[in-house]
Amino acid sequence: MGDKILKIDKLPTVRRLPAYLRLLKVFSSQGIDTVSSGQLAELMGIESILVRKDLELTGISGTPRIGFRISDLIRSIESFLGWATSTDAFLFGVGQLGTALLGYRELGQSGLKIIAAFDTDSDKLNRTFNGVRVFHVDKAPELLSRLNVQLAILTVPPEHAQQVTDLLVMNGIQGIWNYTPVSLEVPEGVTVQKEDLLSGLAVLSVRMSRAVVSQRCEEGS
Amino acid sequence: MGDKILKIDKLPTVRRLPAYLRLLKVFSSQGIDTVSSGQLAELMGIESILVRKDLELTGISGTPRIGFRISDLIRSIESFLGWATSTDAFLFGVGQLGTALLGYRELGQSGLKIIAAFDTDSDKLNRTFNGVRVFHVDKAPELLSRLNVQLAILTVPPEHAQQVTDLLVMNGIQGIWNYTPVSLEVPEGVTVQKEDLLSGLAVLSVRMSRAVVSQRCEEGS
Repeated sequence: MGDKILKIDKLPTVRRLPAYLRLLKVFSSQGIDTVSSGQLAELMGIESILVRKDLELTGISGTPRIGFRISDLIRSIESFLGWATSTDAFLFGVGQLGTALLGYRELGQSGLKIIAAFDTDSDKLNRTFNGVRVFHVDKAPELLSRLNVQLAILTVPPEHAQQVTDLLVMNGIQGIWNYTPVSLEVPEGVTVQKEDLLSGLAVLSVRMSRAVVSQRCEEGS
Repeated sequence: MGDKILKIDKLPTVRRLPAYLRLLKVFSSQGIDTVSSGQLAELMGIESILVRKDLELTGISGTPRIGFRISDLIRSIESFLGWATSTDAFLFGVGQLGTALLGYRELGQSGLKIIAAFDTDSDKLNRTFNGVRVFHVDKAPELLSRLNVQLAILTVPPEHAQQVTDLLVMNGIQGIWNYTPVSLEVPEGVTVQKEDLLSGLAVLSVRMSRAVVSQRCEEGS
């Protein structure tokens, strides 16, 4: 589904896809077969034309009067995101946020499986958090290559972020989900997704003081 | 700065503003006075025309050859976001994610101050986490009105999310930063910002398999 190029203005759509997936799986578990863009729009709190555009990006369109087949939609979204199969990941930094992510059941929705965690604090080594064992960071290179892990979640203190990143890059990491406030330097070919917890707060702050209106731009697509 | 209406396609800009603020404060602490859009673009990993558009939204434009005065920029962004003054908040649900947010020093950047936390677990009541005391949720109505708190962070288990929300709404809450996967029902006038940890992972997944290209649309602004 979809080609190998994605326009940057489609990223807000991508950000919404997990929420669709969550709703669709609830419907599916309730034995519901079809859903309309109007129903999804209401539950998502957005307009139904936006729902249709969002879902079209994954390569699916609804049928008039019937709507979308839920099983098709789930398949289409999961395939677009690459979440249809599971992905192993390592987590670096078992602090408060790291522990929270280790305990975040919803991650399973994405097929992401944290199979090991790393820290340097001797109090944490060899303990398990939600079934995930903590190793010393010195063990990471060996385990990265042995288990062929391509994705890392970074929840280390900011002052260690670049150093751990360099270690990951040297050992073939492909993607880093960066929860530190540091802008990491990585070579081309390595994807970093920076998670800024303050982004959502910025949007909330602005929405509390202003009306946000939708205004679509012509995309010729 | 800015009028009382914000176009929805400006929200990606709003999401980036905290990252600018973070960089600018680092520059400022190093005694640097001015910065160019090119420098900011490089550090943010985006194009400099996008930097200029982002900053224009807050009501500021740079001077050719000189760039932006950092102190002006900080003021402009903080004023746009309403972060120039501090905001008190309550946190509901002192689980792993709640604890992580209580320990998240960066929140202070936004002026957000969590002044109390609430739970129902007797093991947590009256304890303090990072200096924030945990009260039973039954005390929330009294404290909400007494302290005139208008913002709540919701990190309760999904099955309690709507019930706690109803309690908050009844007691005059204006904004809810919702970390649960539940689509909350609130009356008009209450702003909910849903934080979906899977959104970032969706973007990462897509970016690992595709080239993301920028394509600006005409906005006539």
